[in-house]
Amino acid sequence: MSEIDTGVAAAEAEASPVGKIMLVGIGPGSVEHMTQRARDAIAEADVVVGYVTYIKLVADLLDGKEVVRKGMTEELDRAVHALEAARAGKKVALISSGDAGVYGMAGPTYEVLFQAGWTPDDPVQLEIVPGASALNACAALVGAPLTHDFCAISLSDLLTPWPVIARRLDAVAYADFVVALYNPKSGRRTRQIVEAQRLFLRHRRPDTPVAIVKSAYRRRQHIEFTTLDKMTDSDIGMLSTVLIGNSSTFVRDGLMVTPRGYANKYDVEQGFETRDGEKAGRSLSTGLLGWLETLQAQHTEGHTVADLARLHRLPVEYIAATLAEPVEVGAVAAVGEAEGEG
Amino acid sequence: MSEIDTGVAAAEAEASPVGKIMLVGIGPGSVEHMTQRARDAIAEADVVVGYVTYIKLVADLLDGKEVVRKGMTEELDRAVHALEAARAGKKVALISSGDAGVYGMAGPTYEVLFQAGWTPDDPVQLEIVPGASALNACAALVGAPLTHDFCAISLSDLLTPWPVIARRLDAVAYADFVVALYNPKSGRRTRQIVEAQRLFLRHRRPDTPVAIVKSAYRRRQHIEFTTLDKMTDSDIGMLSTVLIGNSSTFVRDGLMVTPRGYANKYDVEQGFETRDGEKAGRSLSTGLLGWLETLQAQHTEGHTVADLARLHRLPVEYIAATLAEPVEVGAVAAVGEAEGEG
Repeated sequence: MSEIDTGVAAAEAEASPVGKIMLVGIGPGSVEHMTQRARDAIAEADVVVGYVTYIKLVADLLDGKEVVRKGMTEELDRAVHALEAARAGKKVALISSGDAGVYGMAGPTYEVLFQAGWTPDDPVQLEIVPGASALNACAALVGAPLTHDFCAISLSDLLTPWPVIARRLDAVAYADFVVALYNPKSGRRTRQIVEAQRLFLRHRRPDTPVAIVKSAYRRRQHIEFTTLDKMTDSDIGMLSTVLIGNSSTFVRDGLMVTPRGYANKYDVEQGFETRDGEKAGRSLSTGLLGWLETLQAQHTEGHTVADLARLHRLPVEYIAATLAEPVEVGAVAAVGEAEGEG
Repeated sequence: MSEIDTGVAAAEAEASPVGKIMLVGIGPGSVEHMTQRARDAIAEADVVVGYVTYIKLVADLLDGKEVVRKGMTEELDRAVHALEAARAGKKVALISSGDAGVYGMAGPTYEVLFQAGWTPDDPVQLEIVPGASALNACAALVGAPLTHDFCAISLSDLLTPWPVIARRLDAVAYADFVVALYNPKSGRRTRQIVEAQRLFLRHRRPDTPVAIVKSAYRRRQHIEFTTLDKMTDSDIGMLSTVLIGNSSTFVRDGLMVTPRGYANKYDVEQGFETRDGEKAGRSLSTGLLGWLETLQAQHTEGHTVADLARLHRLPVEYIAATLAEPVEVGAVAAVGEAEGEG
């Protein structure tokens, strides 16, 4: 609390009695990739609290503000500080790089607020300002790696037991997700990325494309393409995000792209004509209803549930449950619709 | 091509001979949550191409521009159109809601460009402008659900076979990720969400918190909290994102929060004191090195590799491989460092 002058706080409280905490995701780090709301929130703030590196990224926006620079592991402390300043009537911008909700300050702040008895009816109001996360920023720089299902996993074991992390790595490597690894490595924490590689290599090809992006959209931005079997030889640090492709991801002309699946429906080499048995704007013939029909047919032909589970690489109980809820034959022909975006 | 006046294109090409495609993520949909770069890219564009709903969201920015509105399933067509206009010397903003890289236009555009023989050395330049994806926007509105490892899965089977989707749902339900379901349901595509629920209930508690966010930051924004066992009763559509918590996620006072793991290290109820055996800023005692020591000790005590695999819910081969690379006893005490953000 040493940096808060409570006299000033009291004076400001008269003019603006209601304090507010704004959890601001500043995006990757360059001001032009911040949202207007993020800029406005910082402009509105009396106090700006954040990790010292992130404070530097918004230095141009801090004239005349009280600035509280905290160390990297002091998330709870930052949240406590913000709450105390807001209770004193100040507007506080608590900044996170990327998105405040993704390994950012939103979680610890709610934990601290709830512990302090705060509720949404409290005079201290709370706003979360979303931003582009590191995975969005890194993806934009390397091509289009996240075009299909993806996940984010932090390799930091400061708050998460390793078996939880390892189980997640194993599951998503098996299920062929594109994966963004946050906090992949640090000076002292070097074996986690080796273990991640080990788990991935059980399920994925050694030449699976990997991009390592350091300081995306910042001055020291650095991008390296490598492959799963070699990724631990690369320069990886605390400011790196590691993007591991799925089994379809390719690198061409220095761009990492994960196909969305158009090749399942269209003949990509022949003017994007629809393939036999597929319809534009409709579910694939191997989509849910088509697949359920196939499953019924295979079951009728004498395949056991256990056979089908092995064949389709899905749990026995799931196969049994779906077979128990039959789909009308011919339903697939009547069904179709459109695809959204993200 | 009917909407492009090639005479105008040729005239503009003289003044600005180099065409450009800008893949712009406009964020959730309100102009204040767009980045400055996204606004500038649209301002710079001669032509703006996008799905009709997204064009409406940026209507205020389109004065004097050629606007090409496309249907929802016409992603490839949008990309072809953009390339043709760029080849004619125009600057084209190809807009996606959220982030252009997340189920957005970045992937299909690269597929079309590569097919057309485009390379990064082409006169037509390409820029991807990242934005806050639907999952970031929805998370910001409901609390802090994404504070721990998460993944995004599209339930649309228009381009992805159902067994691939089902395998992913099963894997991440097992491995306790927070999950954002994109394209969860449509008028015709109604059983996918039922199947997703079925797969999740194999691994997760029926009362796992679920938030359904429709039209985040748009005029018809609607948020509903429910639980895994009841989520299929809710109003879910093509403009909804479904957020399913992990086993620690809770809802309190109308806010959905996933703890980051502070309770593993600190006594959250007692002023955030460090727990016995844990150190601030250091890996958990159950972090990688601590866990490896435990594993070695259990193995020495006579547990077989198969026992240990069952005990830690990890693959036998992984346990065997890590045991084969011993960690120095006491190494854990010397190691620790800091946590990044996203």
